[in-house]
Amino acid sequence: MRISWITEDKHTPSVVEYGKVSGEYSEKARGEHTSYQYFLYSSGKIHHVKIGPLHPATTYFYRCGRSGPEFSFKTPPSQFPLQFVVLGDLGQTEWTASTLKHVNSSDYDVFLLPGDLSYADTHQPLWDSFGRLVEPYASQRPWMVTEGNHEIESFPTSYPDSFIAFNARWPMPFQQSGSTSNLYYSFEVSGAHILMLGSYTDFHAQSDQYKWLQADLANVDRTTTPWLIALLHAPWYNTNTAHQGEGEAMRLAMEKLLYDARVDLVFAGHVHAYERFTRIYDNKADSCGPMYITIGDGGNREGLALTFQSPASPLSLYREPSFGHGRLRIENETHAQWSWHRNNDSDAFEADNVWIHSLRSSKECWNHTQDSSLDVHDEF
Amino acid sequence: MRISWITEDKHTPSVVEYGKVSGEYSEKARGEHTSYQYFLYSSGKIHHVKIGPLHPATTYFYRCGRSGPEFSFKTPPSQFPLQFVVLGDLGQTEWTASTLKHVNSSDYDVFLLPGDLSYADTHQPLWDSFGRLVEPYASQRPWMVTEGNHEIESFPTSYPDSFIAFNARWPMPFQQSGSTSNLYYSFEVSGAHILMLGSYTDFHAQSDQYKWLQADLANVDRTTTPWLIALLHAPWYNTNTAHQGEGEAMRLAMEKLLYDARVDLVFAGHVHAYERFTRIYDNKADSCGPMYITIGDGGNREGLALTFQSPASPLSLYREPSFGHGRLRIENETHAQWSWHRNNDSDAFEADNVWIHSLRSSKECWNHTQDSSLDVHDEF
Repeated sequence: MRISWITEDKHTPSVVEYGKVSGEYSEKARGEHTSYQYFLYSSGKIHHVKIGPLHPATTYFYRCGRSGPEFSFKTPPSQFPLQFVVLGDLGQTEWTASTLKHVNSSDYDVFLLPGDLSYADTHQPLWDSFGRLVEPYASQRPWMVTEGNHEIESFPTSYPDSFIAFNARWPMPFQQSGSTSNLYYSFEVSGAHILMLGSYTDFHAQSDQYKWLQADLANVDRTTTPWLIALLHAPWYNTNTAHQGEGEAMRLAMEKLLYDARVDLVFAGHVHAYERFTRIYDNKADSCGPMYITIGDGGNREGLALTFQSPASPLSLYREPSFGHGRLRIENETHAQWSWHRNNDSDAFEADNVWIHSLRSSKECWNHTQDSSLDVHDEF
Repeated sequence: MRISWITEDKHTPSVVEYGKVSGEYSEKARGEHTSYQYFLYSSGKIHHVKIGPLHPATTYFYRCGRSGPEFSFKTPPSQFPLQFVVLGDLGQTEWTASTLKHVNSSDYDVFLLPGDLSYADTHQPLWDSFGRLVEPYASQRPWMVTEGNHEIESFPTSYPDSFIAFNARWPMPFQQSGSTSNLYYSFEVSGAHILMLGSYTDFHAQSDQYKWLQADLANVDRTTTPWLIALLHAPWYNTNTAHQGEGEAMRLAMEKLLYDARVDLVFAGHVHAYERFTRIYDNKADSCGPMYITIGDGGNREGLALTFQSPASPLSLYREPSFGHGRLRIENETHAQWSWHRNNDSDAFEADNVWIHSLRSSKECWNHTQDSSLDVHDEF
């Protein structure tokens, strides 16, 4: 687990003290720090400290920099059930605050964010205010993110490199999955293997991302991680009139990899609405393809994407432009429950709800995959 | 004069009929058309028709595509007085609508826009809604624009080229000034030579823009155009806490060119506030330098840049975060009047007002410039 925080004081040590009892920090870890410039903006001292090993499903208390307030977080369980919150296009509006409040109204284990965090869009102080906004939540649970277009922040002639703030502030454990870029990686939690893909870095067949994804999928062991889930920013399937076609090049490049690997679910953001599709492969309903869900309804300042194409595609099973968040509760190796929660409803109300059977447990789909999975192995 | 409009109907001819009497179109011009794709978005048929020659200070009536409603516009005068509206960072909010209404409350000749038009930010239909919003104004007077960061709209891997929509929808007469890019050009109106510079394309000493600017300045005849004015997006001088330093690389590259040429005024946008400086060269008050004005208070959705640095620099003479617009009324060869008008005031109220003496009429500054101007000539 990595703890990240930022201090104005350059002398604050990159140290996290932690333990299972409030106020008693039996463990200590020292990490690294970085900072960045963006024109005349200078970031604070950005600390990143890896702590652990940690026990599963355990609450730890910790403080950062040897002083300051105590925080606590709960580690994910080692076994099912396992509950994710999934939510993209967060921003930092009053809608965002409402969404986060709803997210926190019931327990969960890991926060998955398919891109578009702060909407700083080159205004660097907005990364700091975003950090302050999410601190009460991101300090309590692991937040795993991948990049959206609002993280790009390149600036012609002066800052041609993209993702300066994102990479400095939100480093993900990409090296552990063999990735060479913070823009795509994978991780495992309990019985789930999560692919965090990059819509805004090369994804074509000769790209580093593509080769990494091939290798990563070849190493997935569906016996220990029966659930295989992908996140990316620009949706491959989308019947909203906003952002039509923006995920198409990536879909054409990578859909077969995910299909052959029997990915269970693909979450996207980008479109500021909620939409759930049936299982799909290559624009056709396919019981062995992933279920596609767009969950870009976090609350950013651009507002909702109000208009869907008419008539509705039969592939699209539920669609609505309302702010809210999603929850994926994996009950066991074979069953999971997905629910969508509007900000405008009371916390317990599930506006959409569907049971999902894992493809690993599907006799129809799994034999085929094992074969093709072996094929992929052969290439390495 | 170029008339641009967009039709859904691909069969609409790129023809403008016009004349001095309503309903009687004695003249006709045929132009060109273009269109562009951005992912699955297809623009309408974008028509561009050059009309003329036109008489100065004359109202023309016209219609586009051989049918549809009649519009009218007034051509600028051939002699002083000449009145510009100057306004950046327009967007398409209710603030924008208020600003445009105030702009139209009194007469003017030419609209100057130092970048950030629609804030479409890759959502292409927002370029269309922006067009509909400004049509009642942009159909009546010449709108001359240069690009801001919100026009960039590049998209990693899919659309690496920038300014796709801007260049297709808002072509400026760059070829007439010897420029090879729609991102920087100059034009003349009555007795003013206007430099429309590009903050988001290369401006360094070996760049095309720099060489073009050198050549363009060498050709300015201050006898026929005593006023020399520049517009660009990211301000070179700025005491707001927003966007600090973003114009600095361009200032270091180009400030001496403008100073040696005795540019009278430099207008910028980008910072969502109003700020007027004294005459400056190289961070010092200099009576032969340009007066710098930031006028990025058009009304875009990002809101105002509320915080200025404290204490105020003595170079900054007036600064305030309020939406509004500016007017530059050139009275004659030697005197002009600049005024700033808040949206929150009645139309006639001038929140800020200053008389400007042209550098061409300054004995102290002009002799020096004539020499250096000759030096520049020698290089060609």
